Amino acid sequence: MLKNEITKLLGLDYPIIQAPMAGGITTSKFVAIVSNNGALGMIGAGYLSAHELRQQIREVKQLTANNFGVNLFVPNDFQIKEDEVEMMNKLLNHYHGELNIPVEKVILPIVENVFHSYMEQIQVVIEENVPICSFTFGIPTVEVMGKLKHYNVITIGTATTVTEAVAIEKIEMDAVVVQGSEAGGHRSNFLSDHEESLIGLMTLIPQVVDNVSIPVIAAGGIMDGRGLMAALCLGSKAVQMGTAFLTCEESGAHQVHKESILHSKQDDTKLTRAFSGRWARGMKNKFIEEMQNHEASIPGFPVQNVLTQSIRKASANQNNKQYMSLWSGQNSTLARIETVERLIQRVIEQANRIYQNV
Amino acid sequence: MLKNEITKLLGLDYPIIQAPMAGGITTSKFVAIVSNNGALGMIGAGYLSAHELRQQIREVKQLTANNFGVNLFVPNDFQIKEDEVEMMNKLLNHYHGELNIPVEKVILPIVENVFHSYMEQIQVVIEENVPICSFTFGIPTVEVMGKLKHYNVITIGTATTVTEAVAIEKIEMDAVVVQGSEAGGHRSNFLSDHEESLIGLMTLIPQVVDNVSIPVIAAGGIMDGRGLMAALCLGSKAVQMGTAFLTCEESGAHQVHKESILHSKQDDTKLTRAFSGRWARGMKNKFIEEMQNHEASIPGFPVQNVLTQSIRKASANQNNKQYMSLWSGQNSTLARIETVERLIQRVIEQANRIYQNV
Repeated sequence: MLKNEITKLLGLDYPIIQAPMAGGITTSKFVAIVSNNGALGMIGAGYLSAHELRQQIREVKQLTANNFGVNLFVPNDFQIKEDEVEMMNKLLNHYHGELNIPVEKVILPIVENVFHSYMEQIQVVIEENVPICSFTFGIPTVEVMGKLKHYNVITIGTATTVTEAVAIEKIEMDAVVVQGSEAGGHRSNFLSDHEESLIGLMTLIPQVVDNVSIPVIAAGGIMDGRGLMAALCLGSKAVQMGTAFLTCEESGAHQVHKESILHSKQDDTKLTRAFSGRWARGMKNKFIEEMQNHEASIPGFPVQNVLTQSIRKASANQNNKQYMSLWSGQNSTLARIETVERLIQRVIEQANRIYQNV
Repeated sequence: MLKNEITKLLGLDYPIIQAPMAGGITTSKFVAIVSNNGALGMIGAGYLSAHELRQQIREVKQLTANNFGVNLFVPNDFQIKEDEVEMMNKLLNHYHGELNIPVEKVILPIVENVFHSYMEQIQVVIEENVPICSFTFGIPTVEVMGKLKHYNVITIGTATTVTEAVAIEKIEMDAVVVQGSEAGGHRSNFLSDHEESLIGLMTLIPQVVDNVSIPVIAAGGIMDGRGLMAALCLGSKAVQMGTAFLTCEESGAHQVHKESILHSKQDDTKLTRAFSGRWARGMKNKFIEEMQNHEASIPGFPVQNVLTQSIRKASANQNNKQYMSLWSGQNSTLARIETVERLIQRVIEQANRIYQNV
């Protein structure tokens, strides 16, 4: 029942993919442990330089002989509006004060460099023979796709709507992750606007399944065997789980991040652009609540991400959850602290139990 | 597999409830046909007077010997701000012009009357021995609950969050409908605010199931056997389907309403307060789009509902979909025109097929 075309394509024991959470969560050890336990470990490489990525790929290869993957952010054009940045910096200075850190001159991102860095990442994926590469925030160009296919890299896109899933199939990717409105972290919408991309998995999965022929992987709030079985019933062939893996003992997530999820009493997440300029779902804190009043003046991604970097970093160093991006899906109350092995076994055992009893 | 405590409690062949869509959709014939086919027919009585409700209950009883239910809106206190109403009327006059209808003096609702009318509805439910009564927009008082229990009326609440579901269990209702963010029509949140009540079923069902012991009924975007099976896997015991029943041949929905759903190419719904003052999900049209710019100045429910009544009515009479409330869930592309009997059989057959093949 849990073996299908996607487990075959990706070489997995179980139809479970660990979501490629960027920003230090997916350490080499963590990714390898996931792969060693029959699921797919993924390096969240969005913020890594080509050099760092190559390093990490080599580490993962040392730790597992199984398949693993890399996730890249597809860059989008952006503009820097100086007055917008100046206004935001003034606003953020207040938080530098709260955290007792100096206000330093921030080096703003440059469009050409971002695109260049992405092309270098693609090159590393090819040179290091990474078996699987997934993408968020957009789709690669026909040229990049041609290159990846030439080197037999299995490609996976990320869609939030039927329109985006169809675009991913059209460019001949091998599978599509559908990200429901329940998902934690960054929204991956790239053709649909934010509001229209907020579709629950209960309706997103069947609509996408009916409109594409490539296998569909469900992402968003899936935490246990109930979610896995539901996703399979709706027509997807596998699930991608983020929050559930994030709180695992081996994950590289900050302890404060893990605890804020583990101690949540009910869905306490909120969609915000405050941290990066792109909509993302995370646990409510002071920064999200206060920045809500300035939503219209938040610069886009990746500008805002660079502007808030020192605040997020200092907040983490000080174990202060109020200014950290505590990404989480809407199912935070179901999170547990346990080993990766236990999580995967628990999900599979529960799925089998449901199958026999539903 | 499809028989459980909820089918037993409600006396059903199948774990399917027809959502109580108010405003003329749930005609007596339609409700009776649903009940005669093994699911639960529900009268959407929110806008009915006690007299109209009694009439309809008696009609339904003539047409079916099976169980059926009534859904009531729990009234909430509201205020009428004269300047707000005046401003809105000015704005709405424009639409009277577009539709060539006279601007008439609107009789505004009075809080006491709304509460009185609700108590009369409760009395009718009791006097007519209605077997099942469900509630949206809130929970009945302890007094009302005591009365309903005394007369053995089975009660069902509607929750959008864990907090609301727990409150429904605490007041000793027999079951709880959980309304996911995917759902069409009015949001039923009453303790949680609009934004925090937008939780996808994939995460809402398991979290509620883990926090209450009464049976959970899933509502929101469920259109076929895939949705039914997914909802059962997540731990709910039945589903409540609105949009799927709305487009059935026998439903009393306006033809223009049915067609706007049947011809949708992908999720084309939007959350709006424009029609009634309460957030609700419906197919995008001119009225929703244009009123979006005036969101902050829309009076609350039921004031706005009264103010827009003549516009909605004229738009429907003129077969003009631009000013009608075309409520729909996020799964509109899966809607079909078919008989109620065929819909129910199709859902059950598909659920059984999935169970054997997943």
